[in-house]
Amino acid sequence: MRNLLSMEHLTNDDVMMIIERAAQFEAGELPALAKSYQVANLFFEPSTRTKTSFEMAERNIGCTVIPFDTDFSSMIKGETLYDTVKTLQMIGMDAVVIRAKEEEYYKELLTGIDVAIINGGDGTGQHPSQSLLDLYTIYKEFGSFEGLNVTIAGDITHSRVAKSNATALKRLGVNVRFLCPSEWSGEFEAHHSWDGLLEDSDVVMLLRVQHERHCADECFSKEGYHEQYGMTFEREARMKKNAIIMHPAPVNRDVEIASGLVECERSRIFEQVRNGVFVRMAILETILKGR
Amino acid sequence: MRNLLSMEHLTNDDVMMIIERAAQFEAGELPALAKSYQVANLFFEPSTRTKTSFEMAERNIGCTVIPFDTDFSSMIKGETLYDTVKTLQMIGMDAVVIRAKEEEYYKELLTGIDVAIINGGDGTGQHPSQSLLDLYTIYKEFGSFEGLNVTIAGDITHSRVAKSNATALKRLGVNVRFLCPSEWSGEFEAHHSWDGLLEDSDVVMLLRVQHERHCADECFSKEGYHEQYGMTFEREARMKKNAIIMHPAPVNRDVEIASGLVECERSRIFEQVRNGVFVRMAILETILKGR
Amino acid sequence: MRNLLSMEHLTNDDVMMIIERAAQFEAGELPALAKSYQVANLFFEPSTRTKTSFEMAERNIGCTVIPFDTDFSSMIKGETLYDTVKTLQMIGMDAVVIRAKEEEYYKELLTGIDVAIINGGDGTGQHPSQSLLDLYTIYKEFGSFEGLNVTIAGDITHSRVAKSNATALKRLGVNVRFLCPSEWSGEFEAHHSWDGLLEDSDVVMLLRVQHERHCADECFSKEGYHEQYGMTFEREARMKKNAIIMHPAPVNRDVEIASGLVECERSRIFEQVRNGVFVRMAILETILKGR
Repeated sequence: MRNLLSMEHLTNDDVMMIIERAAQFEAGELPALAKSYQVANLFFEPSTRTKTSFEMAERNIGCTVIPFDTDFSSMIKGETLYDTVKTLQMIGMDAVVIRAKEEEYYKELLTGIDVAIINGGDGTGQHPSQSLLDLYTIYKEFGSFEGLNVTIAGDITHSRVAKSNATALKRLGVNVRFLCPSEWSGEFEAHHSWDGLLEDSDVVMLLRVQHERHCADECFSKEGYHEQYGMTFEREARMKKNAIIMHPAPVNRDVEIASGLVECERSRIFEQVRNGVFVRMAILETILKGR
Repeated sequence: MRNLLSMEHLTNDDVMMIIERAAQFEAGELPALAKSYQVANLFFEPSTRTKTSFEMAERNIGCTVIPFDTDFSSMIKGETLYDTVKTLQMIGMDAVVIRAKEEEYYKELLTGIDVAIINGGDGTGQHPSQSLLDLYTIYKEFGSFEGLNVTIAGDITHSRVAKSNATALKRLGVNVRFLCPSEWSGEFEAHHSWDGLLEDSDVVMLLRVQHERHCADECFSKEGYHEQYGMTFEREARMKKNAIIMHPAPVNRDVEIASGLVECERSRIFEQVRNGVFVRMAILETILKGR
Repeated sequence: MRNLLSMEHLTNDDVMMIIERAAQFEAGELPALAKSYQVANLFFEPSTRTKTSFEMAERNIGCTVIPFDTDFSSMIKGETLYDTVKTLQMIGMDAVVIRAKEEEYYKELLTGIDVAIINGGDGTGQHPSQSLLDLYTIYKEFGSFEGLNVTIAGDITHSRVAKSNATALKRLGVNVRFLCPSEWSGEFEAHHSWDGLLEDSDVVMLLRVQHERHCADECFSKEGYHEQYGMTFEREARMKKNAIIMHPAPVNRDVEIASGLVECERSRIFEQVRNGVFVRMAILETILKGR
């Protein structure tokens, strides 16, 4: 694995290798890198979880992290992303984690650059490290993927997570179903009500409602969304024994999920964050040890 | 000590323990932590001294500091402070230092969260690490608190420092007097002139005039303030032998204090900054070693 | 060397010492500092290369780097640069690297402060670490300076690099020529066409067109500039064997230089970035070991 760009580039074997390595890290194994690598995190969009998680994972495997302030870089003077990343290469970086607004921003970085690129989210495209931590969370819970019913509920078209996960889960034998308001389904075939989806779901993955996109929208109401598509106390009670609730966060409390359920017994929302560090350690180690 | 939230939660013994440990660090003792802890600094208001001082203290006692950019976190997408701090906990943080605009912001963090919270200033509320470094500065100078005369001059109502210090100093046997324009005294009983305060003060603590609050105010003039309430050369000359001048900084030169006095012999203004690192090392070590 | 402020303060011996030490670092020698120093980078203007390069160099020679966010410091409350740097001294900093808008901002820091000041660029004044890496790049290429022809092309008046370089190159025996539109030549005697400059140049140093200054200007057109003063394919072909092209970057592709030439065989543009890390290690080591 030279870069991590999209779930579509990963085989099932790649996915399982990351999952197994993450499990070893969680069990306390030490990283196996022979030297210290230099990395930088270029986040062109706000992030708490992904950026901080990478920062922690990088230090955990012994990297030196060089700070990079996207707000205050020469890109605001018009320098291209290619020139910026090439510059970081010449300064000595081995890998960069990038989150950017543009889908597939990484395409311009694949020729002429010798720094590992780890996609931390590309616009409404992919978010592979989130997807891998979601897969790890499911695998830890059920021990396999084959035949699981996973319902992904929310703003599917604009969700990096939905796309990354759908691709990978299906390939691993999961039965993936989508639930969303009809105006949000986009290219996906989706259900528009919970009927028939709740009782047999092993996993309900809630997606974040992107206020910045929908709140201006007259027909959108938080209460209405919660009522129709959210995880209410009533719905949680109907879920089957051992089924779990996931959410990539940040959560809009009382929109996607009732505030009181965010830390309920079957919620893995904060557990996902914890798992993310182990998964990112596995991603970084795999990519760096190949250099 | 599990958290550091407010001077009101500290006993005199707590205060003396921090002061003694700070003195040991200043004398060159090494920190006694068995492992490296992970910390983050969440500053939602501008800061040079407090943030940089914590950054240095954290490294001095062997912590790993994970950067957190408050301007570019998911809180700008509406994530709550609780969810943000809980996320940092799951990522592996042992302690977070927080400065926020809201008074007692930390109240929502006391249940459900297992990260040590160190208050780096809450709105116009408390600023306990500043207060402890002020106390350390006074103690180093006089060897005890009992019976000292301390005059706190300036914008008492809006000052985190005044409140934190007044609480602690009185409890330690200090005779605390306030001086300020009558419209700024708030809940405090204050003097409105230096008469009778200057000659017997062991410590004059000047507070920062908060331009952002007062400069729009028609009746406020910098020169007038300096004349009536500031530390002028003439007043400095009237102070008693061995009396000291303190200021939490940033200083408005020629407002609270004549520019030429900022580094005068009895000024401890920059010495306070130096003391702050040792005090914060003591705070962090005390809290972290209890985990 | 106590500080690094301006090329005008450096003797030829100082320059050669830095160049030789940089070459040793590039050859793999380890830094010779007996202890770890604390440094901070105060960048009041956007920067990718200079800031990141210093960040890397600092870590490479074993410094602890304390983050400092210029956007979020007490300077926005009116604290002076003197008080800010003095504060950093008291917190324990040994050196600060500063980039600021004001020319010779460092003059107010030369009395009363005991932190090494490294100038990372002062307004339209000097940029000595860039100049030293340019000199190192030229020296690596030609083995000496005496008698080389160096053409500096572009916005000479507003360029920190032009001024720093002109001073040093001339003193080292280089024949320096300037090329620019007549309205940009300022105090310098400049050519206004490539005629007679291209064929005998050993080095062509292109300067960045500062869009922020010129694009509002009606008479300025990117295409026109490129045509008349830029490095086109046609001009590159006329350069003599072994001559090199340099640019401090960020590059405006197809303005100062045809995009397809940025990584051509005689371009040292990205090599300069690589050299910058070794040069900055040499600067930092030289200054810190003298403390």
